[in-house]
Amino acid sequence: MIHRIRILLLAALTATPAIAADPPATPAVTPSAVVAQAPAAAWQAIPAEELLVMTIEGGKRVVIQLAPGFSPRHVANIQALARAHWWDGTSINRVQDNYVVQWGDATEKKPMPPGLSATSPGDYAIPLANRRLAVTPLPYADAYAPSTGFVAGWPVAMDGTAAWLPHCYGYVGVGRNMSPDAGTGAELYTVIGQAPRQLDRNIAVVGRVIDGMATLSSLPRGSGEIGFYTPAEHQVPILSVRLASDLPETERPHFQMMDVASQSFAAYLRLRANRKDDFYDRPAGGVDLCNAPVPVREVPVRPAP
Amino acid sequence: MIHRIRILLLAALTATPAIAADPPATPAVTPSAVVAQAPAAAWQAIPAEELLVMTIEGGKRVVIQLAPGFSPRHVANIQALARAHWWDGTSINRVQDNYVVQWGDATEKKPMPPGLSATSPGDYAIPLANRRLAVTPLPYADAYAPSTGFVAGWPVAMDGTAAWLPHCYGYVGVGRNMSPDAGTGAELYTVIGQAPRQLDRNIAVVGRVIDGMATLSSLPRGSGEIGFYTPAEHQVPILSVRLASDLPETERPHFQMMDVASQSFAAYLRLRANRKDDFYDRPAGGVDLCNAPVPVREVPVRPAP
Repeated sequence: MIHRIRILLLAALTATPAIAADPPATPAVTPSAVVAQAPAAAWQAIPAEELLVMTIEGGKRVVIQLAPGFSPRHVANIQALARAHWWDGTSINRVQDNYVVQWGDATEKKPMPPGLSATSPGDYAIPLANRRLAVTPLPYADAYAPSTGFVAGWPVAMDGTAAWLPHCYGYVGVGRNMSPDAGTGAELYTVIGQAPRQLDRNIAVVGRVIDGMATLSSLPRGSGEIGFYTPAEHQVPILSVRLASDLPETERPHFQMMDVASQSFAAYLRLRANRKDDFYDRPAGGVDLCNAPVPVREVPVRPAP
Repeated sequence: MIHRIRILLLAALTATPAIAADPPATPAVTPSAVVAQAPAAAWQAIPAEELLVMTIEGGKRVVIQLAPGFSPRHVANIQALARAHWWDGTSINRVQDNYVVQWGDATEKKPMPPGLSATSPGDYAIPLANRRLAVTPLPYADAYAPSTGFVAGWPVAMDGTAAWLPHCYGYVGVGRNMSPDAGTGAELYTVIGQAPRQLDRNIAVVGRVIDGMATLSSLPRGSGEIGFYTPAEHQVPILSVRLASDLPETERPHFQMMDVASQSFAAYLRLRANRKDDFYDRPAGGVDLCNAPVPVREVPVRPAP
């Protein structure tokens, strides 16, 4: 009985790890089976210049996908900072439980490279006037926004005038000074707990961690105020941060994300909201915006565009 | 400028650590200032028999508050298992990122003590027929339930017929076999990521971690399937699990939770939904059920009832 509890919790709390070489005989009943069975056409390559590769102490790799379509000025700054090798020798200096891991220049004295873009609070959302977004709607209630959905590979919250990226688990935001300062992009953090959506439209969200998240989320929590590492010796050195496009081809990672307009993504969303595998007595009938992450996968070789 | 970014992000992302010995001259503007200024009458002692004290490798303490009002049969079993010292020598054996930390008998052979209660899926929610709950409503939309609120110190989701505890960060659930098995309470897990609310009403929620959560959430993620620790040497030994009421007074922790019917809690909720401190450009106007944790604090001596 104890044995069966464990085995079946295994089966229940996750999706079946199905890898289908041939089309499946029966429809997938778990979200991850849908992902495993999705055809090649349901996947889109992520451009190498939108992948930030951070290497920390011990050679551990963290890969961040940037969102230039939503935060173009901040992302341009981040790309410039990476090209200037600005983060090399900086550190992860704050880990607050159920909140954020934060990194940047703990000495607070490192000069910024020239040519960074000016930013403003107007950069926290994209206006919908004179623009038609291709939205895959998420038809469930949200505590923070009138409507939600997915646009170009990203979850979005929307009202009648603007769309913005939410602070979901693993999403990356930009530290800033008091408004109207909107940060440069040099001080970054990622969410390691329940989505702090109260920060939406108050801070620029610039991307998401798509590999190595467990390296960040399992770091020791800082003992200083709001999780800052004290003493400074506890800071975790950042060895380098590079755009994938600036790495030699042999070191360059390749990732794909699921097309949010695909039938596979529609099936994935339906099953995230209505679990049908045998474990579930009662499908929820809904899913939170931050509980339906857009599937991302690493691929060994970048497919032809 | 860099210096100010860091300092002000400090001020912005958290509440002011105000400790008021006298009534404050001006109303608190952050949730944690409300908590710091709450009068003694806004706090309720948590009974010692509802506190589970787990000590793991290295002597680290984790304290779980049990919810007998919502899961009486499972909680009675957990109390019996603690009194039988059943978890002593078991282990934390699974850590899956953005999901759960799970513990229990990894050998899957340990006999259960006699006298455990039978459980069923009917135990996952409490029926509202013939019962009037004192609900502090949370008047914001929820993707998973028609309504939400707080009852007797706990967040609840509700429909017209029942109320149930949600799977929030730090909440503790019971591993089980396929339905109609509902688990004994011997195999437990806690949430370490975005609230997996799809598990609500599919698994018994029996309590929440109120101290030592960072010890669990920062454990290395398991390299086995869905985060199981492989090899078994990676499992984290559990030295003991006791009810606080069974500990000598000198070792017994005392905790209080905020009365969800108090004016302090009402002010806390308002500010969680509408951040007014200077950092925020745009208050959210809402807050998710799992993003307004009921304040809990440890106190050195148990106050008179």
